[in-house]
Formats: sequence, C-alpha cells, structure tokens
Amino acid sequence: MFRSVFILISLAAAAYAAPPNLMPVPAQWSAGSGGLAIGSGFRAEAAGYSDARLEHAIARLVARVSRQTGIAFTGGAGGRPALTVACRERGPELPALGEDEAYQLDVAADGARLQAATVAGALRGMATFAQLIAPGAEGFQAAAVHIDDRPRFPWRGLMLDVSRHWMPAEVVERNLEAMAAVKLNVFHWHLSDDQGFRVESVRHPRLTQFGSDGNFYTQAQVRRVVEYARERGIRVVPEFDMPGHATSWLAGYPELASAPGPFRIERAWGIFQPTLDPTREETYAFLDDFIGEMAALFPDRYFHIGGDEVEDTEWKQSAAIQAFAREHNLPGSGELHAYFNRRLEELLKKHGKTMIGWDEVLAPGLAPGTIIQSWRGQASLADAARKGYRGILSFGYYLDYLKPASFHYAMDPLDGAARELDGAETARILGGEACLWSEYVSAETVDSRIWPRLAAIAERLWSPREVTDVDSMYARMAAVSRLLDFAGVRHRANYAPMLERLAGGRPAEPVRILADATEALGIEGRRDARKYTSLVDLNRFVDAARPESESIRALERAVHRVVAAPEAASAEMAELCVTLRAWAENDARLEPLAEGNGLLGELRPLSRRLAALGAMGLRAVEYLESGKAAPARWLEQQNQALAAMETPSAEVTLAAVRPVRLLLAALSRRAPQTGGAQALEKRR
Amino acid sequence: MFRSVFILISLAAAAYAAPPNLMPVPAQWSAGSGGLAIGSGFRAEAAGYSDARLEHAIARLVARVSRQTGIAFTGGAGGRPALTVACRERGPELPALGEDEAYQLDVAADGARLQAATVAGALRGMATFAQLIAPGAEGFQAAAVHIDDRPRFPWRGLMLDVSRHWMPAEVVERNLEAMAAVKLNVFHWHLSDDQGFRVESVRHPRLTQFGSDGNFYTQAQVRRVVEYARERGIRVVPEFDMPGHATSWLAGYPELASAPGPFRIERAWGIFQPTLDPTREETYAFLDDFIGEMAALFPDRYFHIGGDEVEDTEWKQSAAIQAFAREHNLPGSGELHAYFNRRLEELLKKHGKTMIGWDEVLAPGLAPGTIIQSWRGQASLADAARKGYRGILSFGYYLDYLKPASFHYAMDPLDGAARELDGAETARILGGEACLWSEYVSAETVDSRIWPRLAAIAERLWSPREVTDVDSMYARMAAVSRLLDFAGVRHRANYAPMLERLAGGRPAEPVRILADATEALGIEGRRDARKYTSLVDLNRFVDAARPESESIRALERAVHRVVAAPEAASAEMAELCVTLRAWAENDARLEPLAEGNGLLGELRPLSRRLAALGAMGLRAVEYLESGKAAPARWLEQQNQALAAMETPSAEVTLAAVRPVRLLLAALSRRAPQTGGAQALEKRR
Repeated sequence: MFRSVFILISLAAAAYAAPPNLMPVPAQWSAGSGGLAIGSGFRAEAAGYSDARLEHAIARLVARVSRQTGIAFTGGAGGRPALTVACRERGPELPALGEDEAYQLDVAADGARLQAATVAGALRGMATFAQLIAPGAEGFQAAAVHIDDRPRFPWRGLMLDVSRHWMPAEVVERNLEAMAAVKLNVFHWHLSDDQGFRVESVRHPRLTQFGSDGNFYTQAQVRRVVEYARERGIRVVPEFDMPGHATSWLAGYPELASAPGPFRIERAWGIFQPTLDPTREETYAFLDDFIGEMAALFPDRYFHIGGDEVEDTEWKQSAAIQAFAREHNLPGSGELHAYFNRRLEELLKKHGKTMIGWDEVLAPGLAPGTIIQSWRGQASLADAARKGYRGILSFGYYLDYLKPASFHYAMDPLDGAARELDGAETARILGGEACLWSEYVSAETVDSRIWPRLAAIAERLWSPREVTDVDSMYARMAAVSRLLDFAGVRHRANYAPMLERLAGGRPAEPVRILADATEALGIEGRRDARKYTSLVDLNRFVDAARPESESIRALERAVHRVVAAPEAASAEMAELCVTLRAWAENDARLEPLAEGNGLLGELRPLSRRLAALGAMGLRAVEYLESGKAAPARWLEQQNQALAAMETPSAEVTLAAVRPVRLLLAALSRRAPQTGGAQALEKRR
Repeated sequence: MFRSVFILISLAAAAYAAPPNLMPVPAQWSAGSGGLAIGSGFRAEAAGYSDARLEHAIARLVARVSRQTGIAFTGGAGGRPALTVACRERGPELPALGEDEAYQLDVAADGARLQAATVAGALRGMATFAQLIAPGAEGFQAAAVHIDDRPRFPWRGLMLDVSRHWMPAEVVERNLEAMAAVKLNVFHWHLSDDQGFRVESVRHPRLTQFGSDGNFYTQAQVRRVVEYARERGIRVVPEFDMPGHATSWLAGYPELASAPGPFRIERAWGIFQPTLDPTREETYAFLDDFIGEMAALFPDRYFHIGGDEVEDTEWKQSAAIQAFAREHNLPGSGELHAYFNRRLEELLKKHGKTMIGWDEVLAPGLAPGTIIQSWRGQASLADAARKGYRGILSFGYYLDYLKPASFHYAMDPLDGAARELDGAETARILGGEACLWSEYVSAETVDSRIWPRLAAIAERLWSPREVTDVDSMYARMAAVSRLLDFAGVRHRANYAPMLERLAGGRPAEPVRILADATEALGIEGRRDARKYTSLVDLNRFVDAARPESESIRALERAVHRVVAAPEAASAEMAELCVTLRAWAENDARLEPLAEGNGLLGELRPLSRRLAALGAMGLRAVEYLESGKAAPARWLEQQNQALAAMETPSAEVTLAAVRPVRLLLAALSRRAPQTGGAQALEKRR
C-alpha cells in the first residue's frame, strides 16, 4: 500500500543520490514527501512473528528514539502504533554467517511499516528507522521513504584488540550497540597477545593469574557479552593468537614454550620471540582442553587462531624442535607452522569449530573450510579464493593508523586482484573487518579511534558497490556520529573532558580550538615519538585529538564554495573568517594556560603555527575579496611556510593547513601582480 | 610531621584567600610548595580503623582520580602508598545529624596523609584530595597543602522533586555521587505530589498503580539508593507531602479525600484542591500503616511530611469536616491543619521518627523536636528557633528559579532576622537545603539545573562565614563543574548532544555559539510562556541552554581587565574580539540550519539580536582602542537597543548583553566628543 506512491531509484543510476543521514545507504530507496511526526504518543509493535529478542529490540528502539529526540513517550492512548514490525519467522537462533538480513521499510505521514523475513532483518530495519528521525517544520519526524534493503557482504566486522590495552566489558558492550546501529554483524574479539590474556579459563587458571595483571573477562561476563551481541544480531568470534604473539600464555605455562622460561607478559610493542612449541604432544593436549572449554563459551561456529607474524628464532635455536622437524620432513619454519595449524584444525573440528586465521595460515594442507583474514590485501584474498578458501579483507581497514574515513571508504574487498576472479571464487570473499590494534588506544580513547570512521567501512560492506560519493559519505557520517552519542559510545563525549583536564579546571576554549584544528598521529607516527609501553598513560593532547577533524573538513568545503561563488556563500565566508580570526588570536589565549603546565607546554610550537596560519588565511581572504592578485613571491613564501607547518608536533598534525592551502591555490590561479601586496598594505 | 612546614591561615584574615579549585573552601588551610606527583604507581590505603565503607570509599577515590587524570593505576610495586587514610573509629553506622565530619589532610611531595576521627570525616577529606589534583610542570600532581577542616552547619542538603517529572534511580545516584564531591550530607527525596506517587508500597499498591504512570521506585531500588547514599555519608530523608499536594494518593485511594472522587493525577502545575481528610480515623489508620512501612524502608531518623500550601476549599465545602471542626474546637483551616499535624506526629513517634515539615507546620501544639524547613526565609526560621524548634533554610536556595550562583551564595542561614538570635537559638538553625522542583526539569536536563550552582550553596553551608569572594567562588566553581564530569553527572555532557539534535545531525557550531550567549528562564519566566503540562517535552533550545553562562561571565571579566589595563590584557582582548566577531557572523551561519526546522526556527529573532550585539561590541572596541570618545548620541542609541535586547525570546535571555553593556559603560565614562563617529568611520 505504501509502495505505490514511490518511484524506486535504480541501483544502476549513475549518481547514487544518498538519503539524508542514512548510513549505510540502503540497497534501494526512494523518498516520499513529508514524514511521520514523532510525538509523545509514539509506539512500536510487532505485527507478526515475535519473540523475546524482537520485543527487546523494539523496546530498545523506542528508548533510543526517546533519547535522540528528548521526547518522553507515554505509549499513546491505544490505536494503531506509529511503527509496526512484521516478521515472518525467527531465523537462526544464533546470528549465523549468511543469514537473511533483508528488510523493507515504508514510512509515510500516517505510519511506518517494517517487514522482514526474520528477526535479523527486522533488527537492521529498526537501525534504519532510527536514522530517519530529524527535526522538521513541526518538530521531530521520520522522513517519508520506501526502502528495500539487504547487505552486499555477509561478513561485516570489527576486530578489537583487548590485549595490548585492557577494555572492560562495558566498553565492548557500548561498541556492540553502536555496531548494530550501522548494521555490522561480526565482533572479532582479539583476546590474547603478548601483552595480556584476557579471558578466564577455569581449567587453566594460570593463564589469567600470570598473564593479565588481573584485567580479564570472567566467563559470566563473556556469556553476557555474547548474549548482548546476539540480541543485536552480532556474531562473536574469539581470537586466541598462536603459536606466535603468545607470551601471555607462557607466563603461567612456560612448559608450552619453544624455549626455556620464565616468561613475563610484554610491556613493549612489536613482534616477540616467545612461541608455543609445535613439536610436543603436551602442547596439543593443553590446546585440546582449552579449546574445548572456549568452544562451549563462544557459541559461534568460527574460531580465530591468529597465526600471524610467527617469529621462528626459538624454533631455530632449539635442537629438539629442529630434530622433530627433520624427523617429520618439515624443512622450514613455514612447514612447521603449517603442521601446527593442521593439528589445531583437527582440534577445532573435534570441538565443532571452523578455523579462521590471518594470511600466514594459508599453506598447503590447510583444510578446505578455513577462512583467511587478510591484512595483506586483495591479491592474497584472491589467491586464497582460487585455492577454494573463503576470505575476508582487513587490509585497508586498520583503524589504528588513524587514516581518514575516505581512505577506508575507497577500499573495496572486490577491487584489485579480486576483480579477476570468476563468480564462484568471488562468492568466497565474504566481506571485511575493520581492525583496531590497541598499542596507542585506552578504554577512554578507544571509541574515538573507532567512531565515526567505522561507519564508512560499514557502508562499504553493506551498501551497493556504486555508493562511492565521498562528500555524501562525510555529510552522512557526521550525522551518524552525532546519533551514536545516543547509542552510548563516547567518541564525542570524552573529547571535551580530556581536553579540559589538561587545563586544570580552567576554561579550555583555546585548547579546544587548537584540538579542532589538529589530527592525531596513528601507530606509524607514534611508534618512535617517545618510548611507549603499556605503562605509559594515554592522557595527553594527542590522545584527545581526533583522527580526522570534522571542522577542518567543513572548512575545506566552505573554501571551495567561497572560491567558486563568493556571492552565494555568505554563511561559508562567515564561518571561514570567524575561524581564521579565532586561530590568529588563539596563541595569545592559550599561552596563559600553558604557563607552568607541562601537559599544555608541549603544545606551544603548534599553537604558534596555528596563529601564523590564521593570519596567513586572513591575508589570503583579503586578496580574494579585493579581487586583486597576490604577488607571486608572497604566494611562494606562504607555500613554503605551509610545508614547514605540516611536520608533526606533539604527535599531531596541523590539519588546519589544508583549507589555507586551498585559499592560496585559488589565489595562484589568478595572474600574479607585482606590487599587489604593497597596495593591500596601504588599504589596511 | 607535615604540619611544621606550614603556616596556618587564620579564619579572621580579612581577605580569605581561596586555595585553587577547592570547593567548599576548608575551614583552615595553608599552601605548601610543589606537590605530590600522581603517576601510575599511585595507591591509597587505610592506616588505622577500617571497614567495608571506608575500603569502598578508598577504591572509589582511586577510580575517580584515574578518571580525572587518564592514568591507569597499576597499584605500584609495594612500598608506602601515596595517600594513607588514618581513621580512629567507625562513627555511627548510618550517617547521622551532627556526626563528626572533621578531618586533617597533609599533602607534600613525599606523600599525603588524611586523618579523621570517623569514617565520615575521612569521606570528606577524600573529596578534598580529589580536588587538589591538577596538571603541573611534570604532569598531574596533588597540590602541597595542610588542611584542617570541619563543616559550619551539620545539615547540608539537596531536595529533589521526582514527582512532577520522573527521575530514574540512576539519576538520583549520579547526583548523590556529585553531592558527596562537594560534601553535602542530606538527600531530601520529594517522593509524592499531585503529579505522581513515586515509591512502591507493598501494603497499599494502588498508590503507584493509579498514581505513578508506572514510574516509581521499587522498594529494592530504594534500599539500593539508601545504601549508595550511606556509603557516601549522605542521609536520605523521604518526603510524603500531606495533607495538600496529595492528588496522587487519592487516585488509588479516593476514600482518603476531603471531597468525593474520582481523582486522576495532575498533569498541570499549580496548587490543587484534593486534600487528605483530616477528620476521619480511617485516614490515620491508613497513614499509621503506610508510615510504618516507609519507616522500615528509610532508616534515617527524620521523616518529612511536607505540609505546605494546603488548599482548604474542600474542607470548607464539606459539611462533615466543618462539623468535626466545630465539635473539636478548631475554628479555622489553620487549626484543622495543626490538628492533622499533631496526629501525624504521634504516628511518626510511634514508628521512631522525628517530623520535619515546611514553614506551614509551625503552629501551636507542634511537638518540640520538630524541624522546620523554611521556604519563607530567615525571619520564619528565627521565629521557630525562638519557639524552640530547629530549622533549615531553603529560601534563597530554589535552584529551579535558575538564578545565578552568586545569588544563592549571598544567602546565609544566619543572616537577617537570624542575626538577632542568642547562642542557643542560633544553634537550632541546622543549615540549609537547595531545592529543585521539577516542573521544567526532566531526567535529561536535571543535572544542568543542579550543577554547578549547587556547589556554591554547598560552600555556603560548609565553609566559614567569611568566605564570600564571588570571583573566587566562580573560578573554583568552574573547576569543580569540570571535575564533576568525572563523577558522572551530565550537566556538561548533555549540552552538546541536546543542541546538536536540534540541527538534525548537521554541524551545530552556530547553535552552540548562540546557546553559550544565552541563559534559560526559570520557573517564573516559563510559567506563562506556553501551555506547559507534564506531557510537554523538554527538548527545546531553552532546555539545553544553561541557567548561567560561564563563557559570558568570563567575557565580563575580560572586559573589566581590558578596560582597566589594555596593555596587560592581550589574552582577554583576543578572547573578546574573537567572541564578538563570532557573534556578528553567527546569524549568517545559523540561518541555513534553521531553514525548514521548527526547533531552530524559533531562534531567529534571538540570533539576529546576537549578530547586532556582536557588531555593536566590535564598534565599541574600536572606540576603546582608538582612544577617542564615542558620541553621546550613539551611546544613547546603543543603550536603548541593549535594553530591548534583554526581553526574553524563546524562553531564554541574551546574557551576551552584559559584557557589551560594560564596554559601553567604559566609553560613557570618557567625555563624549561630537564628530567622533564620523572620524572613526573614515579610519575604517
């Protein structure tokens, strides 16, 4: 009944217009006119199959919409609910790879109807409904729309490293809630590494007694997290990294090691030598027991064994291991690793699990069902697919590099070498996973390192391949980022308090202005910036600063508009001038705060740069407004100064350089004029 | 050992210098040099009497300091803890009126030592320790200090109305945590009123079945809240308002009413007629039973029966009530009310409770131990004290009027008529309570209506009478406000999300600039602004706007400095110019957001005013900097314009008028000069 009033926009449309604020973009959608008013009588109800999971999800949606709008719903006075959720059946009891996630959503002035074959589809549709709500002329409303949606890839995940820095269960849960809001469906929990073993084993308690500093999840907590994820249609795939990245196992069980102990958990970052001994039956007996215990705790069919970056020094130095290798015709460390993986795969099979591992596990003899997670790229995935293995892409999705969302957005699992695969091979590429390794990430900063950029990756994995408009992506990501405030993640909430405590309780506006103009360095930039270990606190300016500055991006767009059509860009010109002046004056305001304050003191060079940048930008705007060309020599000097300003300082970069560079580029496109600077000087 | 290096500052010192960031100011304190470095090895330990309450409090302190600093404490490598907490004894098991809350705190570079007679004193000292931490040259440190502290008044409270708008238990708990941070010790829980009955009665379930819309605390929740408060040294005093403000009782039990029912809970605000029938024994049988149940649930000795604003229409209209009054020689409604209170007092006594009530309960025959809570003022308190009753002041502490902190700060329980009391009478004035009535306050906005202004009242009630410097208070209140972020109250956290959702996910900087420049109207201003009921949502700009603008206050101080000594105020001049320019340009930036958006549309007149104000301020700064006098006629015009700008719009006032008025006043003090404006015009 709703559908007739809409015209479906074809997938093939060249310009894939994006609906306001929806992320990921639905497979098919068309806008209606007006919307469904959201008032205090708003109510949602199941109108078909229902069960506890669906009822909880509906209750969560209503609570979410209440938070988003500030409306206290009273449940209305009976009558038809504003939103009906019509499911046909339950679908699998546990979220399952490849389950049906499709849904249709119709919103009109007189009501909204969500239809889905299964509860999983209904969950995705409710996430869409929440995103449709925005203020209209008469108050909050859900935009009228017809949506027919389903995911492009069945595996859309986030890997979170909770070993290098400990992430309490509530951090995991709030991120699961946010993942569900952008339709991600796999949480890959990196639970062990050299720096910590993070899950309780009742059978092998020394794993956490000696390997965790007391920071680990009890089995009851794990069960709660798994159930929390299940309610949101998210699979939980545990990873126990072996045989390398294994120091934390060996702190409590040195007898499993390839070299004599004792071992202590690592505090530094890198690749370390301690490795499980692949040649002793005791190792496999231990793993059989351990995997059996974990298989019962984590109900998902897939079990991640890591398998990356195996350092073979200990293997080469051990006479016993080398003797074993000769005896079993394993000529090199690669073969030894492959032998270990085959044994591991047998154990997993015994406990009903299918193996997933990083690129390095791909070796002759690997069991057919295995999934390869590729940090190496599409060529590696394509190679695996040709050999019959399924794969997921993580190359290009490493969030800890703090690259811009546009970088990740451009990365497609089916690009590059994967383009040459045939249909059956292509179908083996299941999707992708963003990864957050936590060397430079704490429980306080983790949300800001995941969000909002993960939403762009979520869109890449859900939406049609043709959805690639970067400006549209950024506009919608900004909206989703704000909505996620109401899902409970703290990527925005922690920003001001982290900056303000640096100022010791004094008003910290100048610190915020500086932070808004900068971008934090990622793992590459910080690695050698100072002597970092897990004991160094992540409470400095760089930790509060964002990976990507939304306000600088907005300013870049403002400059584009001002340059293109100044007369139609008065709001943008206002924004530009206000911001440039604030920069120009900011150092004078920051300096008194930095006096005697070591945490702000390190920002002085950066602050002086921002002031210079503001002055330069104001000068450029004056040239632009005067219609006169800037002198070539002046432009050259400014561009040189800009290049110098790009060097990182205090582990951040000055993103504010970018819009000023755009201004200078606009001036350069005009013919340079000698004496222009002098003329302008007089005018001022 | 610590004390010898400090010189105590006498209470009698004319200028009572305030230590940085401490609020309330301690009774006696003196600064040392340097401070105690707070690093990852920070640890606190009991070094005397200890029990679960103290251990929990120490653990909470360590967690709080970790959040404040972003440092993940590892517990150190043994050795002496950085802070030792030396208690002599437990003190009363439950927080008790008049218990010993004194403590001494010594902080030096080599350690900190907190000493107290009882656990209650230690709790207060730990709140002080948390406030001492700020960034120094080498990172976070606790300032070296010697403190010898005790409260001025034993009753320092907050009354929260959870009837007119429902406040879930977590709202109460986070505010208890924040109250403890500023050493408040009484939570007065206003649990029933015409609009809702908020606590479960097992014996009388219709109270919440018909009187709460399902929004009430279970008895298990009440017990948790009481225990949560006990752990923080806070007494919980329940209030059940009777015989007036009683509609919500009567919805389920109309037989208790003075007039025939039926009754439904009120949605509007005001004073309503439904009143308990004071003449029937059934009323007292019901109350006996109910009070018995509540007496067991709320362990504090004091029990608040409201007793305010008794509307006597029903009494006058009832022949039976009038007959009873004649029969019992109760000539007027006042006498009838007093009769009711005497009966109530007997019941309270039977159940081991002492009565507390609002001014109106003070009448002949009132039992001697009763406490009077005065919304009328010090004269009313003094009257009660002379008659032998104890009292607490709430007049001048009504937070819902959204008056500036300085207003409340100036209100002293012992001022006015109370100055004339003798020693014994004065001792009957136990302290005060801030009150938050919730007509215009929701669970989302409540924290911003309490904090940070309540901290100023907390200081009034704890600190020596001589502590009255308003500038010092505001500077420290700003610091405490930021620290309270880490206690979990959301007065700062909810500001940006509430503003940003008005902009529908688009960057909302112009909305924030406008909000920073405004102040929300309180109950007086909103009462007639529109047809408000409990069903009207509190999600508009006014609800996000703050009662008092910290940034406008900072700007006023900046103007004072710029005017007094421009050459020494470069940071202030920068702040002033940046802000004025941002105002001048803001309307151009806000207008595109307001297009088609009803929630922002109502702000247009206000936004235009702010732009005009910015332009006016910039012009005034130009006069100031030029050294030339502004023309008298221009000044006059601007002052007229300012007066018009002060009219509320969209239920907020433009606080930004104040600093501009200061600028104009500075110009007025110079001799006006004809032709000045023209000269300046040319210069531009």
